[in-house]
Amino acid sequence: MDQQSLTASKVFVRDLADGQAVDSVFVVRERTRRQKKNGEPFLKLQLGDVTGAIEGVLWERVDELFEYCAPGGAVRVAGNFCVDPKYGASLTVRGLRPAERNEYEARDLEEGPAHAVEQMEAGLRELVGMTQNPFLRELLERFFASGSRIWERWREAPAAKRYHQAYRHGLLEHCLSVAQGVHSLCGTFPEIDRELAVSGALLHDIGKIEAYSVDSGAIELTDAGKLQGEIALGYYLVRREIEEIDGFPADTAEGLLHIILSHHGQLEHGSPVVPCTREATLVHMVDNLGGKLGSFDRLEKALADGERWSGFDRALSGSAYFASREAA
Amino acid sequence: MDQQSLTASKVFVRDLADGQAVDSVFVVRERTRRQKKNGEPFLKLQLGDVTGAIEGVLWERVDELFEYCAPGGAVRVAGNFCVDPKYGASLTVRGLRPAERNEYEARDLEEGPAHAVEQMEAGLRELVGMTQNPFLRELLERFFASGSRIWERWREAPAAKRYHQAYRHGLLEHCLSVAQGVHSLCGTFPEIDRELAVSGALLHDIGKIEAYSVDSGAIELTDAGKLQGEIALGYYLVRREIEEIDGFPADTAEGLLHIILSHHGQLEHGSPVVPCTREATLVHMVDNLGGKLGSFDRLEKALADGERWSGFDRALSGSAYFASREAA
Amino acid sequence: MDQQSLTASKVFVRDLADGQAVDSVFVVRERTRRQKKNGEPFLKLQLGDVTGAIEGVLWERVDELFEYCAPGGAVRVAGNFCVDPKYGASLTVRGLRPAERNEYEARDLEEGPAHAVEQMEAGLRELVGMTQNPFLRELLERFFASGSRIWERWREAPAAKRYHQAYRHGLLEHCLSVAQGVHSLCGTFPEIDRELAVSGALLHDIGKIEAYSVDSGAIELTDAGKLQGEIALGYYLVRREIEEIDGFPADTAEGLLHIILSHHGQLEHGSPVVPCTREATLVHMVDNLGGKLGSFDRLEKALADGERWSGFDRALSGSAYFASREAA
Amino acid sequence: MDQQSLTASKVFVRDLADGQAVDSVFVVRERTRRQKKNGEPFLKLQLGDVTGAIEGVLWERVDELFEYCAPGGAVRVAGNFCVDPKYGASLTVRGLRPAERNEYEARDLEEGPAHAVEQMEAGLRELVGMTQNPFLRELLERFFASGSRIWERWREAPAAKRYHQAYRHGLLEHCLSVAQGVHSLCGTFPEIDRELAVSGALLHDIGKIEAYSVDSGAIELTDAGKLQGEIALGYYLVRREIEEIDGFPADTAEGLLHIILSHHGQLEHGSPVVPCTREATLVHMVDNLGGKLGSFDRLEKALADGERWSGFDRALSGSAYFASREAA
Amino acid sequence: MDQQSLTASKVFVRDLADGQAVDSVFVVRERTRRQKKNGEPFLKLQLGDVTGAIEGVLWERVDELFEYCAPGGAVRVAGNFCVDPKYGASLTVRGLRPAERNEYEARDLEEGPAHAVEQMEAGLRELVGMTQNPFLRELLERFFASGSRIWERWREAPAAKRYHQAYRHGLLEHCLSVAQGVHSLCGTFPEIDRELAVSGALLHDIGKIEAYSVDSGAIELTDAGKLQGEIALGYYLVRREIEEIDGFPADTAEGLLHIILSHHGQLEHGSPVVPCTREATLVHMVDNLGGKLGSFDRLEKALADGERWSGFDRALSGSAYFASREAA
Amino acid sequence: MDQQSLTASKVFVRDLADGQAVDSVFVVRERTRRQKKNGEPFLKLQLGDVTGAIEGVLWERVDELFEYCAPGGAVRVAGNFCVDPKYGASLTVRGLRPAERNEYEARDLEEGPAHAVEQMEAGLRELVGMTQNPFLRELLERFFASGSRIWERWREAPAAKRYHQAYRHGLLEHCLSVAQGVHSLCGTFPEIDRELAVSGALLHDIGKIEAYSVDSGAIELTDAGKLQGEIALGYYLVRREIEEIDGFPADTAEGLLHIILSHHGQLEHGSPVVPCTREATLVHMVDNLGGKLGSFDRLEKALADGERWSGFDRALSGSAYFASREAA
Repeated sequence: MDQQSLTASKVFVRDLADGQAVDSVFVVRERTRRQKKNGEPFLKLQLGDVTGAIEGVLWERVDELFEYCAPGGAVRVAGNFCVDPKYGASLTVRGLRPAERNEYEARDLEEGPAHAVEQMEAGLRELVGMTQNPFLRELLERFFASGSRIWERWREAPAAKRYHQAYRHGLLEHCLSVAQGVHSLCGTFPEIDRELAVSGALLHDIGKIEAYSVDSGAIELTDAGKLQGEIALGYYLVRREIEEIDGFPADTAEGLLHIILSHHGQLEHGSPVVPCTREATLVHMVDNLGGKLGSFDRLEKALADGERWSGFDRALSGSAYFASREAA
Repeated sequence: MDQQSLTASKVFVRDLADGQAVDSVFVVRERTRRQKKNGEPFLKLQLGDVTGAIEGVLWERVDELFEYCAPGGAVRVAGNFCVDPKYGASLTVRGLRPAERNEYEARDLEEGPAHAVEQMEAGLRELVGMTQNPFLRELLERFFASGSRIWERWREAPAAKRYHQAYRHGLLEHCLSVAQGVHSLCGTFPEIDRELAVSGALLHDIGKIEAYSVDSGAIELTDAGKLQGEIALGYYLVRREIEEIDGFPADTAEGLLHIILSHHGQLEHGSPVVPCTREATLVHMVDNLGGKLGSFDRLEKALADGERWSGFDRALSGSAYFASREAA
Repeated sequence: MDQQSLTASKVFVRDLADGQAVDSVFVVRERTRRQKKNGEPFLKLQLGDVTGAIEGVLWERVDELFEYCAPGGAVRVAGNFCVDPKYGASLTVRGLRPAERNEYEARDLEEGPAHAVEQMEAGLRELVGMTQNPFLRELLERFFASGSRIWERWREAPAAKRYHQAYRHGLLEHCLSVAQGVHSLCGTFPEIDRELAVSGALLHDIGKIEAYSVDSGAIELTDAGKLQGEIALGYYLVRREIEEIDGFPADTAEGLLHIILSHHGQLEHGSPVVPCTREATLVHMVDNLGGKLGSFDRLEKALADGERWSGFDRALSGSAYFASREAA
Repeated sequence: MDQQSLTASKVFVRDLADGQAVDSVFVVRERTRRQKKNGEPFLKLQLGDVTGAIEGVLWERVDELFEYCAPGGAVRVAGNFCVDPKYGASLTVRGLRPAERNEYEARDLEEGPAHAVEQMEAGLRELVGMTQNPFLRELLERFFASGSRIWERWREAPAAKRYHQAYRHGLLEHCLSVAQGVHSLCGTFPEIDRELAVSGALLHDIGKIEAYSVDSGAIELTDAGKLQGEIALGYYLVRREIEEIDGFPADTAEGLLHIILSHHGQLEHGSPVVPCTREATLVHMVDNLGGKLGSFDRLEKALADGERWSGFDRALSGSAYFASREAA
Repeated sequence: MDQQSLTASKVFVRDLADGQAVDSVFVVRERTRRQKKNGEPFLKLQLGDVTGAIEGVLWERVDELFEYCAPGGAVRVAGNFCVDPKYGASLTVRGLRPAERNEYEARDLEEGPAHAVEQMEAGLRELVGMTQNPFLRELLERFFASGSRIWERWREAPAAKRYHQAYRHGLLEHCLSVAQGVHSLCGTFPEIDRELAVSGALLHDIGKIEAYSVDSGAIELTDAGKLQGEIALGYYLVRREIEEIDGFPADTAEGLLHIILSHHGQLEHGSPVVPCTREATLVHMVDNLGGKLGSFDRLEKALADGERWSGFDRALSGSAYFASREAA
Repeated sequence: MDQQSLTASKVFVRDLADGQAVDSVFVVRERTRRQKKNGEPFLKLQLGDVTGAIEGVLWERVDELFEYCAPGGAVRVAGNFCVDPKYGASLTVRGLRPAERNEYEARDLEEGPAHAVEQMEAGLRELVGMTQNPFLRELLERFFASGSRIWERWREAPAAKRYHQAYRHGLLEHCLSVAQGVHSLCGTFPEIDRELAVSGALLHDIGKIEAYSVDSGAIELTDAGKLQGEIALGYYLVRREIEEIDGFPADTAEGLLHIILSHHGQLEHGSPVVPCTREATLVHMVDNLGGKLGSFDRLEKALADGERWSGFDRALSGSAYFASREAA
């Protein structure tokens, strides 16, 4: 496993075949120290990339290599991939060291937004800057001011625990695309109050910054997220902030809070009220659409070469089909 | 319709028969001035008592009698009850004047709590007084302090628009009986944190003071009630108040807010989260039970003599059956 | 009812008050000849405008006026509006004649698209003209060629029997706005095959030209519409046409037929398959959004001055709320 | 594994850690003789305590130890607990002998009621003794007479196959707590016929004595339980017994049978009729509450130290949360 | 209205047109004495035939004609049918007398079975006679023995309150056709235990003899029908009878009781258990089919000439379509 | 494993016991070449018969025996069956050779129709031959003409991917039994247009020939099957063929297409319209019945000796019970 040998391109998890010798870079997702029956230690790893994850087992040099494979790190791994008839697939690790930064592309290892965070932030600032209504503008600026506590968390947060945009900056990516979609549809449906709808789109998921915690890569619901729910948490944050702004019109406040409360669209999906304004209807629909299209992105990344159908997916309540684009 | 003649007991709406001459006291629920085809005015009234309501029509002396029949007032009415083969039932009013206070029993005219409001308030104060936890105690006292704005509204409010306890003081009656039921069940199920559950029971419906308005007898949902929902409104009120109390323990706050948010028991009934603590489960169940038993009370009042079955009732998703108690 | 007197603006059905004298233009929706108990004829009319409909009764000069009030015609009506306590609202017609073309605005009488049909046709031709894929382009041109039988029907057809765009050119208006919305969202979600999605959006409802018939103003489901359903009818039309085009790629055909079959989004809404491509997901969502926003438009037209809430609406599964725009 | 060494407290299944040496008492739930590939026998055991169960494997001295580990017995086990990376958790048993009665607490090994059976029986006799209605009293005495066949089975039976009170005397515990809860709620809701409701609460689940069989610790549905269901079986038992009692009033019989038939509350939960009396509503609700609180008890026992959330639980349709009580 | 004039064929309710003079035979369904505003009496009748019902009003000679129009009787009525623009359709009765037996066909007046009751009884006896299993045979003979109390009620009972075969002998007709259908399908599906299935088909609805009462033509649910339900009532009847027969095999009893309990097919339709044998599956399906086809029969009778579509029907969850048979 | 030794009867998968020596014939369902950790190859097989399947592992003589065990072939296998405590059940194969044709019964190895395909084809021809309506007759003959492409595929196709008749000729068996059942029920329900219903029963599943592919024994949904669904595919096939037949009556065509489109009975089961004719109702019901009874057949085959209950089965939404027939 000398460094020069990695001129071949990345070997992806989805493409591994039984018996294959592997020398490639993966990210460590989990690391557990276990005991063999003879009492000696071994390491059980979860090694992943953007297409999936496999189990790795390291039987030798455990103490020496332990520190190299902290969760979250990129490691270059040499070993053999084997599908045992009884025990399933695993990678027996023969060698492992931290990967050099030039040995891999970050987007091969972890899911992440399609655009750079700076570019997304610029898109957000542009939408905020277009807001003429002074009250909505002030509200957005309070939440999204560089350096504010909420902005820092919102910018980093994932959009979900799984299903779609379950990665760093995912919430920013999701809310921005919903707000941009809402903005562009207002051209087709001119009766909509565009600024109210766009503001609602940007703020609709703000409760997620309190509902999710990200701890060494794992996205978990917090106690507050489970006991109060992201919708109530976001409603409280926005209503508290509105009440701080002098003269915020009651109608605008009602309209905005209604978007947040109703954005899941149906009681059985956790909204305590259903959308009854055009703006709430629009934000709910585009949010839903954005979530579903995010699931298509996630499923496409995990699809092996030549396959067109994903397996059954809970977020879609079905399978996804990806036609070859050239054929069209 | 001289005053002496009303020695006979109250004639109830549910017992009226075609062709019957009527001289009794009713409450005016609605009053509308209409035009006959010849352009002369007449009055269309809705006259009610605790057993139901009928249409009354007053063809003569409209200007003279108009002021006597303001909605909400008790009137002594003389007239003829008639079931027209085509146009349904109505009472042709021949005479009408404000009822003297000794001509009727208030409980014959309007639904209301089974106990005096003072007695219910005493029951509430007793439950609050039994609360040892200083934070819960302070929170309850802030909401229920005599003279506070919220206490005044809460004491007067109805528990619902229809279905159960849809009358003045109905909310107090309902919340008190739920809290008392919760209190007594803690004897059977000792694992429950009694003070948390009782506090949650007292506060669970507090959002209704902003979700309902009572206007000249008619109970209506407010804009906030429709756009935000009673659960979000109550959650906000309680969380804001908790944040005003120094040192309120986070766990207790979470437990109490969770009771409020989850008390409808299921997402499809408008709770954004489902009960996941013993206390929330208990409050939800006793609230539900109290609502259903309130519907039995309402249906029993409207039942004609000798009948045992109500009609289909939406709140019960079925009919109610009232066996004669003596038979048992 | 001389012609000069109609300088006052249109009196709308939604604004009529008990006892009001009326002299305004309405459209005749239904006309029925009935018999009085004495055997003489009278006419029962349904008179409407864009805000609703009322019953009109014409007791005199029946034979003379009968021909003037053929369904679909605009008539100038003089009479008295009266809300009878028992029999409800009606307009007693004293005089009636065909309206002059300059006595009314067509848009006051009948619902219709917000834009002129020529303008909508231009929008359609622009979308078709942007289609680079030669097979999709040919398919669209076959269906939408000026003078083709299908184009003539499609251009005239309503989008629904009630709920949204239930008027002439409504199908064109609906499909065009869905296609334009789909087109604009492809900017936000670039993974989508834009031409396939836009073509699917234009064709998704084409079965409605066989599923609905319009007969003297009334929109009805045909036998084929009830026994086969609009989705199967549209699928057959498009698949038959595709099979006529030499070399139409199988993948493109599958993708397009899948959009049509799945556009109701769920089995229980009548789609025999659920969307499993990005394009089908997008068309379903924007179709759904367009239908809901069309319901908001319909409900807003029927709202009386000063009201903000519609009644419960089946298409929305709730009420619609219209905040005053100025407040925002 | 000498007897003196077990001075340390019980080691619970939920607390076992990979690599831990174990010397503690467990109950044998299952015992299977298996063959190694070389044809020699080994034993596979399921060893449990109140917090869960693990697999035990005994490779040596099989014939000698076989008789010691009959299902249902308490055994003292020495061995090593090991979580194999591929094959999961198991306890390799090195030594095993019947446990002495003073080596363990019964409540550490098996779930069971919180109170002694004699105490529960006394509670039952007290409720029966309070029954004034002579017909209900006779009926209860026939079923619960000491020494009667039904009493013997009812007293021993579990309340369920899993979920709540799935242990010996569980049915007695469950029905008693439901009856006591019903009794205490009658103070809050005085319209209820207390004796009818309490009798219904005691008898509501009596069909379970024919619907479940308990065979060497395993609770199973009988053929009759599956083909007829516990509700029909209980209804038949009670109606047959009522018909044996001269002069049993028809109304009381109807009211009692209705409680039994409707106590699942909804058709989709297996009740052929829904509750339409106050008494049936009350018994259904308290039964439901008792079942849910029983699930909280079960989940709390299996919770590891420091954890507050159970996993998703089917009986609750969610997770259970246990706040630390001290915090409040 | 002399007797000779009725040579014209029956005028059916479904074919009446506004203004039509009527002289035909109808059956009286309801008779109510009412008061005019001047205190004089008049009669309100409901007059029906197999195609529907209308309101009749008799203003004169009330005392004289009252006795002629007892509910259930066939009367010859002369009068005028009139559709009032406001008050709907009614028949103003000018003359009325008891109809002669030769003035009408019974099947024109009342729904009834397609075959004579003797013919249906013969069909039943044939199926019973084919039963070889001595226990099933004895059970069927006990229930269906001529002269037994149950047979008398079963033979007369309707199959339902509305929807299908809601007329005298309807239960016999329905159960016989289900049993015959079950019998004939056993040829196609030979794995089925034919005698068990046919016996179950004959007995599946036997609880209806206690669940329904027929009182002067009106079919009503009894208290037992509402509180216990037809399924529990039938289960009790059959199980009681089985227990009277010495040596009745347990398996056969279980199989038969399971058919009765599960014949609604789903918990939400009121069966406490779902079919889990071939025989129960078959009886459920053919019962369901028989009910739906009975609804088609009912709807076809009420269809006006030239119409092919019924209105929406709850029993079918849709409309029924009747193609002209010749076209096929 | 000499050939003479196989005089003992077939050993079935469902009856294998831990430690049993096996010498019997199975069919190979899957064959995979794998690598041991030392790099040597071994074979993993799936060996089945009509009662189930087990894993077989062949460690030696891999290259020699590889060709003998092509999927689909019957092999005589000698080996040991072993249930490992951790790794589950498998058969260690010691010897294997192609089975002689006289060593096994085909029906012991593979599920298949209960009758010979020739016999089923004769049944089909008989039903077609009874069709008097010339248009229906021609349509059936076009589809079922010996030698036609569709007939060849239809005759071979399975009826489903799993659940019922998931084997060669299963579609023919299923459609024939549905058509025969429909035919026989027309005796009981004479209002049905028998020829239309029988034709619909024969054609209802014809889309399955394009929706399923059978590839070396595995039944899979095709792209068209997933994207268009079997119902739309069958509708297109039949409508295209009808349009080829001159003078095919519109009513008959509508009736037949409606049967195909509605035969799943409910929208949520994938029918875009629900049955609204007697014939469609009948075909839907008998199809459903046939599918359920096919599931009973499948479950009974896999039942071990002495068992009466299957496990939970998704197709039945429950378990199946098989009483011993003798008991009845």
